[in-house]
Amino acid sequence: MTTTTRESVTVLGLGEMGAALARAFLAGGHPVTGWNRGRARADALAAHGATVAETVREAVLASPLVVVSVQGDTAAREVLEQAGDALAGRAVLNLTDGTSAEARAIARWASERGAAYLHGQLMTIAPGVGHPDATVFYGGSREVHDRHHAALELLGGRGILVSADAGAPTLYGMAVHGTMWGALNGFLHAAALLSGEGIELTRFLEAADSSMSALLSLLPSIASEVDRREYALEFGGLRHHLPSVEDLVRESRAAGVDDDLPARTLDLVRRAVADGHGDDSYARLVEYFRKGS
Amino acid sequence: MTTTTRESVTVLGLGEMGAALARAFLAGGHPVTGWNRGRARADALAAHGATVAETVREAVLASPLVVVSVQGDTAAREVLEQAGDALAGRAVLNLTDGTSAEARAIARWASERGAAYLHGQLMTIAPGVGHPDATVFYGGSREVHDRHHAALELLGGRGILVSADAGAPTLYGMAVHGTMWGALNGFLHAAALLSGEGIELTRFLEAADSSMSALLSLLPSIASEVDRREYALEFGGLRHHLPSVEDLVRESRAAGVDDDLPARTLDLVRRAVADGHGDDSYARLVEYFRKGS
Ligand SMILES: NC(=O)c1ccc[n+]([C@@H]2O[C@H](COP(=O)([O-])OP(=O)(O)OC[C@H]3O[C@@H](n4cnc5c(N)ncnc54)[C@H](OP(=O)(O)O)[C@@H]3O)[C@@H](O)[C@H]2O)c1
Ligand SMILES: NC(=O)c1ccc[n+]([C@@H]2O[C@H](COP(=O)([O-])OP(=O)(O)OC[C@H]3O[C@@H](n4cnc5c(N)ncnc54)[C@H](OP(=O)(O)O)[C@@H]3O)[C@@H](O)[C@H]2O)c1
Repeated sequence: MTTTTRESVTVLGLGEMGAALARAFLAGGHPVTGWNRGRARADALAAHGATVAETVREAVLASPLVVVSVQGDTAAREVLEQAGDALAGRAVLNLTDGTSAEARAIARWASERGAAYLHGQLMTIAPGVGHPDATVFYGGSREVHDRHHAALELLGGRGILVSADAGAPTLYGMAVHGTMWGALNGFLHAAALLSGEGIELTRFLEAADSSMSALLSLLPSIASEVDRREYALEFGGLRHHLPSVEDLVRESRAAGVDDDLPARTLDLVRRAVADGHGDDSYARLVEYFRKGS
Repeated sequence: MTTTTRESVTVLGLGEMGAALARAFLAGGHPVTGWNRGRARADALAAHGATVAETVREAVLASPLVVVSVQGDTAAREVLEQAGDALAGRAVLNLTDGTSAEARAIARWASERGAAYLHGQLMTIAPGVGHPDATVFYGGSREVHDRHHAALELLGGRGILVSADAGAPTLYGMAVHGTMWGALNGFLHAAALLSGEGIELTRFLEAADSSMSALLSLLPSIASEVDRREYALEFGGLRHHLPSVEDLVRESRAAGVDDDLPARTLDLVRRAVADGHGDDSYARLVEYFRKGS
């Protein structure tokens, strides 16, 4: 029998996500100390083999790595404040969602208390924690990331330290989610049109499989255009999109389907074309998001 | 020397797209008769070996297959009307973009004149015509599609007859484009945030590659939920999206980036959650597009 001693991990907040994180550490052989504001959730985790702490301070003192997962930045701050001076010399991994400014502020606050800080953005829902294809974007202290790598790997197979900036993971997550919501909104708007005409969406997807996959292949050139702020194209610029967006607006109106989404796309494309950017790539529209409407 | 006689093809409208179509037929060994309202574009095509017709009627009489590609449904109708009774017994392939109702109306009009009708939706810009991975959705007469298959294959390697309904290709195209515009708008909105914080989009894409690819894998289950009108989920329903959409709105406001796009997503998700659908899949939102806002 081999005995390896794995570092102990503290998890503050044992909601859906915190409990999933704690179970992932336990499954990986780490002793876990859990704390939750309400006792019921802490007791539920104890059944999985975790030690339950009565106070945040006690929980923090139990481990070199302190993971926080509660609902909202204000709650995360409230919880960490209860640790008092116990945070000094420890590593805080905050997996609580919020804005980039909130992540940076809590990183500063933690380092003022002598804690090393890493922010993480989980790109999975709780049941996906620990899967080999679950992505976690990390930002902040490389030392925390590297020193606790074995524990972090238990959260998802695709952990990536993207920046020394604790605000970066949040922004990365927002870019993935924003693209996702945009794509899903566009797809579901079209789904309202197609299903209204008796077309099954599963049939559509079968026929359109390669066209849909091709959409992702647009992103690298769009990204590079944004980075270079150079949008000029040989062919296929914004003016080529115009008649098709107009058709989608007219189709929506004729079908009694909400035309808000395509009307906004039309407005953006029209403005850019009117501003003389008809031969520019679709990437030009980033400037219109920057400026506001 | 082998001589194969390929059927002659007529192309009405020799703009960017019509000229590309005509050149693809010529490159495939088909005799092409071209017609264009203005003479300059017709002469340009003659240099590639096409015969130029003086009138639509003369052009139509030259071939069993008549391809139409002009700017807008009204123009397509005007052009075809000039053919008079010459259309009878011929196949019309209309590749002019418009709405599904316009495609169906022109299909009815053509069949009243004794022509077989196929509608096509090109999913490429002109320089992509003829590429092995260029998709064309066809709808209408299977006989036209099958009889002229050799010529049609020259337009794109991925030709698919999706329906006997001449309006279907348009709807298929709109669903691909609508998803594309949605994804690009979401991506570019996020790009405004990330670039404002000095994050290069190409670096983001490298790190987020598998997260972005995973977006497409959401679509089959979403499509099936829409088809079944059943949206209940075990986990990961709309209420899980809510805090993240709120964060994106707050982040946009703080950064001075237009928050219109995420605010609209937030409004949709909030309404659905308020209506008691918090544990339903994101696919539930199709009902909100149906109802209008
Ligand atoms: N669930 C998911 O699948 C998922 C997916 C991605 C990201 N996340 C993120 O993970 C974080 C946690 O979410 P969750 O889903 O686990 O939330 P949850 O199931 O709703 O649980 C909320 C947790 O936060 C605690 N909490 C709230 N306010 C508090 C306060 N003022 N002081 C102390 N504790 C407080 C709750 O304690 P009580 O039990 O005492 O109320 C509970 O442990 C959030 O940032 C969320 O966005 C979750
Ligand atoms: N270009 C692309 O990459 C692309 C991509 C996808 C789809 N499409 C679709 O392909 C179709 C043609 O577009 P295009 O790009 O080739 O357009 P284009 O380059 O702007 O040329 C327009 C063509 O339509 C003709 N036309 C316009 N009004 C007419 C009328 N009333 N009567 C007769 N002819 C008329 C023009 O003739 P004149 O020369 O006499 O003006 C010209 O041949 C459109 O439905 C477009 O949406 C194009």
